[in-house]
Amino acid sequence: MTTVDDQSVHQNIGTEVSDQVSTPVTDDEIFRAHEGGKLGIDVTRPISDPRTLAIAYTPGVAKVSRAIAEDAALAARYTWAHRLVAVVSDGTAVLGLGDIGASAALPVMEGKAALFKTFGGLNSIPLVLDTTDVDEIVETLVRLRPSFGAVNLEDVAAPRCFELERRLIEALDCPVMHDDQHGTAVVLLAALNGANKVLDRRLGDQRVVIVGAGAAGVACAKILLAGGVGDVTLLDSRGVVYSGRDGLNSIKQEMAEVTNRTGLRGGLAEALRGADVFVGLSAAKVSEDLIATMAPSSIVFALSNPDPEIHPEVAARHAAIVATGRSDFPNQINNVLAFPGIFRGALDAGARKITENMKLAAADAIFGVASEDLAADRIVPSALDPRVGPEVAEAVARAAKEDGVA
Amino acid sequence: MTTVDDQSVHQNIGTEVSDQVSTPVTDDEIFRAHEGGKLGIDVTRPISDPRTLAIAYTPGVAKVSRAIAEDAALAARYTWAHRLVAVVSDGTAVLGLGDIGASAALPVMEGKAALFKTFGGLNSIPLVLDTTDVDEIVETLVRLRPSFGAVNLEDVAAPRCFELERRLIEALDCPVMHDDQHGTAVVLLAALNGANKVLDRRLGDQRVVIVGAGAAGVACAKILLAGGVGDVTLLDSRGVVYSGRDGLNSIKQEMAEVTNRTGLRGGLAEALRGADVFVGLSAAKVSEDLIATMAPSSIVFALSNPDPEIHPEVAARHAAIVATGRSDFPNQINNVLAFPGIFRGALDAGARKITENMKLAAADAIFGVASEDLAADRIVPSALDPRVGPEVAEAVARAAKEDGVA
Repeated sequence: MTTVDDQSVHQNIGTEVSDQVSTPVTDDEIFRAHEGGKLGIDVTRPISDPRTLAIAYTPGVAKVSRAIAEDAALAARYTWAHRLVAVVSDGTAVLGLGDIGASAALPVMEGKAALFKTFGGLNSIPLVLDTTDVDEIVETLVRLRPSFGAVNLEDVAAPRCFELERRLIEALDCPVMHDDQHGTAVVLLAALNGANKVLDRRLGDQRVVIVGAGAAGVACAKILLAGGVGDVTLLDSRGVVYSGRDGLNSIKQEMAEVTNRTGLRGGLAEALRGADVFVGLSAAKVSEDLIATMAPSSIVFALSNPDPEIHPEVAARHAAIVATGRSDFPNQINNVLAFPGIFRGALDAGARKITENMKLAAADAIFGVASEDLAADRIVPSALDPRVGPEVAEAVARAAKEDGVA
Repeated sequence: MTTVDDQSVHQNIGTEVSDQVSTPVTDDEIFRAHEGGKLGIDVTRPISDPRTLAIAYTPGVAKVSRAIAEDAALAARYTWAHRLVAVVSDGTAVLGLGDIGASAALPVMEGKAALFKTFGGLNSIPLVLDTTDVDEIVETLVRLRPSFGAVNLEDVAAPRCFELERRLIEALDCPVMHDDQHGTAVVLLAALNGANKVLDRRLGDQRVVIVGAGAAGVACAKILLAGGVGDVTLLDSRGVVYSGRDGLNSIKQEMAEVTNRTGLRGGLAEALRGADVFVGLSAAKVSEDLIATMAPSSIVFALSNPDPEIHPEVAARHAAIVATGRSDFPNQINNVLAFPGIFRGALDAGARKITENMKLAAADAIFGVASEDLAADRIVPSALDPRVGPEVAEAVARAAKEDGVA
């Protein structure tokens, strides 16, 4: 597989934090903004006198506890737990940093909780676990079940994340979603729909190449197929995933059976030749030469963070539309467009689970917001667009009811 | 044991929620104040533009996670967890309601979290457990250890609470305290010191009778002995706890060996005759006739909630000082005077555990605040006195350093 880095361009992209409008963010600024953490507890009914104390705590609270003891359904109304998202991680696949452990994962989980609040209006608490055992994680969350109303799994390494998510969905009667899989997949589908609208293409005619068969790669392949993409070719570090290849784990074996309809073998060069869409979800670099072999007016999603698989300006010499995961280039593919609204919609509807239709509905809603103002450099809404969360939530809640899970 | 209720007085005390200054609180008011729960998540660094998003989440947050991965001690500085109190309950002994389960316990835990914030400036999250197995609760919290910085155990039934607290202290390298035991005990000791100061008495000369050998009764007996009380007699539903009595569980056996120096046997009548202090920590009523048999100028702490063991005005016909757990009578013995400051002090000091000296220091600090304005009807500060939390925290932090646990 050819993965020659275009050093002359990549040295200009760097890994420093920056944004579109101002000076680069310094390390000092980042660390100062994390002093003491990024979350706090807010008391919604201030306790300021004997009366408010007697209502929020003894003796008043006893009436509420007794009422819930008599009718368990009242907990949904009179506690915060029913709409509280547990942001759960074992710290085994944190951003691009890998298995750095539960404590080091916490700043990411706090950030996630901040995004849940900001874009979904939802309360959430980080629960980071000092175990990577699937049985133990499931058992722990089952025991804590009365404490929360939904589970956002985060930064759990593949392939364990697939089993963990499946087991949690079985064990818990509430929405559970591994965001690294499905958040990414939902936004990718929305972005591809946006790109296709700009280019007047259709999903069914396209061949998509996904590099990276981890959590995000697998989920992206699945949602693209569910969304109607003609053919998806999935690659891992050893090249194209195909049925019968040596050493495929169970999830890759499963993917081999539904992807790669033309029976491709080989590496990135073989996969990209004539392909319509490139989706990069691994740290592997891709050269300009390879992008040049794609079909005319191709679409390149170089989503690796912080270093895209190819510099977007280089890709743009050949591709009609380019997207990255970064905020300092056009077309940022950012999960925050999806997860706050998905959980908000699921909880608003009282959904017991998150179905495939709810994810597709979320992608449609994101695409819908983008459609109002679509262009080659605006295939998705801004990550900060306040319209997205509510639109996604409404579409997801509707789909939950249609699917009969609410 | 004589436990005749003084109906003629008790019908006037009732169980309705009220306070000293205004009209009774209605059920409607209580339930409205619990709609949606009493807690929310506060985002301490608002995310409002690409820059704040890039700092709080990717790519900026990666620098913080990487730093913690390289130096675990930095988690204390750059996450909220190190100063976060987990308010943990299995819902087996909720207020006076008994074993009503985890969900029904949640409003109490949310109230506790609200008090932690209001009086200790501490963030805390309720974790209610769908298991009552000590091994499972310990295991669950050990797995979640990186998510919090201290454990406030709450409303766990005796005698299991004693084993659970001991096991958690062994298993976790952070402050752990069962508030129903030690919060109550600390405030009781402070109140008794206040009463003695008013009456010019000394702990060492006194015989104290404690009715109720559950979580609070046992802890109160222990702290009073540690504080220097001459003799403590403990009673359970079968009467005086004495060495060799049939059917004592291990904690009562342990208490039998350190209490009841005069070898009393029998019931409340035998215990109260000539006693200096009555401490009621069970729902059992005590008659005026029995209170009349106590030593002259006795002290009566009728702490059962919402119904004191004897109406305070009836007790006052014989006792020099009367206290209850209620806010609508003088001398309210309320845990909120203790737990916010105890945890705040322990966390401020970076303490690995909460020692007996830290609890005694907390009692001294509460007494210290009361001393400025002491009277027979003001033996403890008001539950809402804003001076108490900081004073307790400072004293506890100092004691932690003296004990070498910080």
